[in-house]
Amino acid sequence: MINQKYKKMLSSRSVIRELSEYATARAAEIGRENVFDFTLGNPSVPVPEDYTDAVMDLHRTQEPVALHGYSPSLGIEYVRESVAASLKKRFGIPYEAKHIFMTSGAAGALAHAIRAVTEPGDEVLVFAPYFSEYIPYINDTGAVIHIVEADTGHFQIRFDALEAAMNERVNAVLINSPNNPSGVVYSEETLKKLSDFLREKEQEYGHDIFLISDEPYREIVFDGLSVPYPSRFYSNTLSCYSFSKSLSLPGERIGYVAVNPEATDADILAIMFGQISRGIGHNCPASSVQRAVERVLDETADLSVYETNRNLLYDCLTAAGLSVEKPGGTFYMFPKVIGDDAVLFCKKAMEHDLIFVPSDGFGVKGHFRIAYCVDTDMIRRAIPVIEEFLKNY
Amino acid sequence: MINQKYKKMLSSRSVIRELSEYATARAAEIGRENVFDFTLGNPSVPVPEDYTDAVMDLHRTQEPVALHGYSPSLGIEYVRESVAASLKKRFGIPYEAKHIFMTSGAAGALAHAIRAVTEPGDEVLVFAPYFSEYIPYINDTGAVIHIVEADTGHFQIRFDALEAAMNERVNAVLINSPNNPSGVVYSEETLKKLSDFLREKEQEYGHDIFLISDEPYREIVFDGLSVPYPSRFYSNTLSCYSFSKSLSLPGERIGYVAVNPEATDADILAIMFGQISRGIGHNCPASSVQRAVERVLDETADLSVYETNRNLLYDCLTAAGLSVEKPGGTFYMFPKVIGDDAVLFCKKAMEHDLIFVPSDGFGVKGHFRIAYCVDTDMIRRAIPVIEEFLKNY
Repeated sequence: MINQKYKKMLSSRSVIRELSEYATARAAEIGRENVFDFTLGNPSVPVPEDYTDAVMDLHRTQEPVALHGYSPSLGIEYVRESVAASLKKRFGIPYEAKHIFMTSGAAGALAHAIRAVTEPGDEVLVFAPYFSEYIPYINDTGAVIHIVEADTGHFQIRFDALEAAMNERVNAVLINSPNNPSGVVYSEETLKKLSDFLREKEQEYGHDIFLISDEPYREIVFDGLSVPYPSRFYSNTLSCYSFSKSLSLPGERIGYVAVNPEATDADILAIMFGQISRGIGHNCPASSVQRAVERVLDETADLSVYETNRNLLYDCLTAAGLSVEKPGGTFYMFPKVIGDDAVLFCKKAMEHDLIFVPSDGFGVKGHFRIAYCVDTDMIRRAIPVIEEFLKNY
Repeated sequence: MINQKYKKMLSSRSVIRELSEYATARAAEIGRENVFDFTLGNPSVPVPEDYTDAVMDLHRTQEPVALHGYSPSLGIEYVRESVAASLKKRFGIPYEAKHIFMTSGAAGALAHAIRAVTEPGDEVLVFAPYFSEYIPYINDTGAVIHIVEADTGHFQIRFDALEAAMNERVNAVLINSPNNPSGVVYSEETLKKLSDFLREKEQEYGHDIFLISDEPYREIVFDGLSVPYPSRFYSNTLSCYSFSKSLSLPGERIGYVAVNPEATDADILAIMFGQISRGIGHNCPASSVQRAVERVLDETADLSVYETNRNLLYDCLTAAGLSVEKPGGTFYMFPKVIGDDAVLFCKKAMEHDLIFVPSDGFGVKGHFRIAYCVDTDMIRRAIPVIEEFLKNY
């Protein structure tokens, strides 16, 4: 008599994971250098040396019982203070430690943020294209996911589609900029318009609508631009962050939720997250990782390789005539396929050992995702293969 | 419009945490050496040096992208293999990697185990006295907690009370041996009788009843005894473990669920746990911690201090005439109070700066919990104060 809902989930395996496993098996067969695996969003550059030094120093110098002791369920106090100070300095929002809740990566952050501001049955708006894991993340909270149709031109927001989707049961809107899978960064104009729209709806419905902003790619931006920080535009914002991509630490599972100090109930939300943790068995990121990350809060891995890779691929694809919205950040690109069948297109690409992810799982048809967090050398070797594939398609 | 269930939980703060905060504040006032804080189950002995060496070595020698890369959601494969091999060797149960699911401590383990084998509305039986966090752990899964009255004599199982509580809606039974708060270890006789009873009820009801065995204190046993391993007695057992206490690593949040290979659906339960993780935002313990713990799987911190402390306290309390069931393990003791009001007793003890936890939060009246994971020196200094307090009570 095991749980039937979770048992059923077993048959709906992740397409990305299946493709990635295929790529790995294929590499074992014909050699790693002959397979061009663009499936996984796994950082390809090392963590900064300062992080490794911090880990070594902590383990060498700190008293073990204190170093490995229980973290308070909201996170280690001085770590929360440092995160608040860093965000305050950077974005001019007067965060204090009480607004910061340390989490097991962005997944942990979203699990708390969504539960805190919705009741079962409430709707959460999500814009296509979206990270496919949002579906289980949201479904399991008891809230209902409601997809807003994509702006397949520039991957900003289609406000007519947003207006059509919005209704009184919506208590949270989830955005992800820089975006997985499109690589697009929401412009200031988009964020201003979204904020105005949400404030208007809050007024109309007489209840809060929280903006849950998933920002694991905040640090990976190109062309010297910086990402407009959503919380500056809308006070009911919960910023969900992960150090997975910026510090190349995905396995260490560390991130946070930052509650805008002007948000409704801003002073109790982090404490509520702590209560939510008890129910979902979350219980903080590892204490040694919290302490080590605190020492390198304002650093990143050397992220420049992702821009190099973007440029190479973008030039290759556009020269071959594909329609591609140029990514402003992340390590993803989301070109249009030739024809309209993304699954068929990606299947044909596989015959050339080019492993792409069709767009259907991201809630959009007719595109494919390239994850270019790979060695630049691999991109250079892939380019002639891509050119050949596209020429004959 | 924040979530009202979690908002309400804010007013029901943890008694243990409040007492611990009082002790800390009081120590700041009158000096740390004058406050006898027996509230928290925080290990007081250092992690084995081999663990620290493992962390240093991993960070010095491993390629950072691999070391800090995403762990598969079920845990790193070779870590799961090592855990399975260690358990197999120790307990003679033919575990394989597929039966092991790495978790963020025992809290994470229970969150998955309970969700996997219950549907919302099903009952989970829990024996008093119980770790008070079981209430939020179980409530949030959607299952209903059903308390079985305590055997306040020896803190084994009252089978008449179990028979009275058992019914068709029970799909899981949660045990915790060695037990927090009583320190008692379930005897082989108790486990045999429990297993026979559950098998009989499975037959009668025509459905599985899973035994969820919470075992963070498995390694802390006294008098050279060993803890009977529940999974050896009952095949539908999910063993939930944490390295927090045995390796003194509570802040690092690492543990596992081990599915008995003979359990119903044994081959798919770990994969189901992976699906559950997506919904609750769990996503594995930190990858570097998984790798470091794997290197010291069969070690423990020097746990002998807890036995020394138990002996000193047990002798002191029994000599003063208190009724105490002698703990077979853990670092807790659960004596009867004088009179029958545990809250009043603990309040009076506080006047002597002896900070104990009254039993009411553990589902039993008239007892108090002493957590003796403290310096032996503190116990020695506390003994005359305890004697004085009890003499005048």
